[in-house]
Amino acid sequence: MLTFHKEEIKASINGALALRTKINEIVDPIYDQGITNICFMGIGGTLASSMQVVTHMQEKSSLEVICQSAAEYTTTGNRRIGSGTLLVLSSVSGTTKEIVSAVTKAKVYGATVLGFIDNKDAVLARMVDHVVTYPANEQLKFFMVADRLMFHEGVFSDYEEYYTELEEHLADALVDVGEKSEEFAREFVAAHHEDMIHYFVGAGNQWGATYSYAMCYWEEQHWLRTKSIHAAEFFHGMFEIVDKNTNVTVFVGEDSQRELAVRVANFLPQICHRYTIIDTKNYTLEGISEKYRGSISHLVMRQVCHRIDMEMERVNAHPTVIRRYYRQLEY
Amino acid sequence: MLTFHKEEIKASINGALALRTKINEIVDPIYDQGITNICFMGIGGTLASSMQVVTHMQEKSSLEVICQSAAEYTTTGNRRIGSGTLLVLSSVSGTTKEIVSAVTKAKVYGATVLGFIDNKDAVLARMVDHVVTYPANEQLKFFMVADRLMFHEGVFSDYEEYYTELEEHLADALVDVGEKSEEFAREFVAAHHEDMIHYFVGAGNQWGATYSYAMCYWEEQHWLRTKSIHAAEFFHGMFEIVDKNTNVTVFVGEDSQRELAVRVANFLPQICHRYTIIDTKNYTLEGISEKYRGSISHLVMRQVCHRIDMEMERVNAHPTVIRRYYRQLEY
Repeated sequence: MLTFHKEEIKASINGALALRTKINEIVDPIYDQGITNICFMGIGGTLASSMQVVTHMQEKSSLEVICQSAAEYTTTGNRRIGSGTLLVLSSVSGTTKEIVSAVTKAKVYGATVLGFIDNKDAVLARMVDHVVTYPANEQLKFFMVADRLMFHEGVFSDYEEYYTELEEHLADALVDVGEKSEEFAREFVAAHHEDMIHYFVGAGNQWGATYSYAMCYWEEQHWLRTKSIHAAEFFHGMFEIVDKNTNVTVFVGEDSQRELAVRVANFLPQICHRYTIIDTKNYTLEGISEKYRGSISHLVMRQVCHRIDMEMERVNAHPTVIRRYYRQLEY
Repeated sequence: MLTFHKEEIKASINGALALRTKINEIVDPIYDQGITNICFMGIGGTLASSMQVVTHMQEKSSLEVICQSAAEYTTTGNRRIGSGTLLVLSSVSGTTKEIVSAVTKAKVYGATVLGFIDNKDAVLARMVDHVVTYPANEQLKFFMVADRLMFHEGVFSDYEEYYTELEEHLADALVDVGEKSEEFAREFVAAHHEDMIHYFVGAGNQWGATYSYAMCYWEEQHWLRTKSIHAAEFFHGMFEIVDKNTNVTVFVGEDSQRELAVRVANFLPQICHRYTIIDTKNYTLEGISEKYRGSISHLVMRQVCHRIDMEMERVNAHPTVIRRYYRQLEY
């Protein structure tokens, strides 16, 4: 098996879950004071994570939940973001310029900002009202904030039971997904490592995963062309260019939008011979209750994709750390 | 010049603008009764129009404005959509199944639905609370609703002045754009009619235009592969696959997000030789004040794109009315 440090992965996940106490110490008093809305803000990969958590909240919560591109906020603004807003963001470097500008503006309008900043010495870490520093696991961090708010709102009564289950079983379950998807990843990469273009389709909390996997991994790290499309949008234009030789991968999760992805998965065999369905349902997730599988489907998919990435890097002999333009040129 | 029925185009635009009285008769009492939020709902092309009008409103309005995919609403739901919601949608056929399901659900939750349904005998026309029947011009219809609400809210004091200008000059100005872009369209199509993949980039009210032009025109009608990307997202992954031979077109408008598209336009020449910039600033728009140009940039772009479509249809000998799968197969 290629690079796969089980114990490191488990420690990383469990360490992220252990942030919950700290997150709640920040979120609880903010909720008690009263908020008008919650805004998840990002750019690129962090915008994708924002899409995921917003979809997650919209199902249960009656809070106003905003998914905001940092660059659009800096230019167009959003008058809904103000003194009653809890603004949540994540930045690995803590220097992303779109995020720095957006936070500067949001502070002027009085928003309370909670930043997950991996680099605690970065400028952003000093700008936000509350900072949590811990590497990676962005989705878990965002979802812990969302779930805590929904717990307070009274629409997530089994919040403690859910997190107890994650703390006990998530890390092992996800590592198992990684191990079980190794063979699939090898075959998939053998078939697709030289694709002229690869289409990724997904819905629900997989949509952010689909969007970011296509863009932040295949395009940015593997330099492979992709298009991502929401499963519901697939039938409204894009599918006309799919023929028997088109490379299409459908991410099928287990949340409320599962049926949208399944619709694409069921349709494809009629018109295409180079499609792949990755269905999180095919993974055991030992210890995770059926009713919670939907809420972690995107984490399951991430493990599968990670195996693809490792194998792709090897087969294409293209180290994923190299950037052609990102932070190499002025723009 | 290829198919270009000036007088028909003008009559179509002016007829749409003349709907304003009727729209206001519907919107005014709804606003007076009080609304919690406004939701523009769509799927495919109509979702793209929703994105445009939501971006337009977010800049000035402090109303909660929701851009909602009909399919996501039917599956995941959105608890913000309820008895205080004015839900606005558009459907040419009035039979699109995602829209029919979503409206059925929104009615259960008590939303007030205003439908622009081109076919007044369709099932949807009977389901909505208020129906306006007039062909095409979806963006103008949505923007007239948005602008009226912003007028009532007190954030668009020159509303009457603006629409007077549109009524007097918009049709002529847009027809002129069509005429002036004929030569450009010919050269552009000659260079790009056999592209393996073409990238479209845009921001602001051009983002919906970018998304739908790539998907609903090139993919659906011309059967040409595309990827659309928001200008702000371009630098967060996708640009790594651009090289000197990559086909990239940037839609540059004149609204608040112009700078995001200009950033891409300024960067591209460093790394690419097959880029095209379509800047609405290059069109005169006789009679339209400088301050209003941003609000109609997407309509200007539509005219340019329409000339490309006509020329593409001719050069590729591919009638744009043919569908391979859409409403041809079961899915």
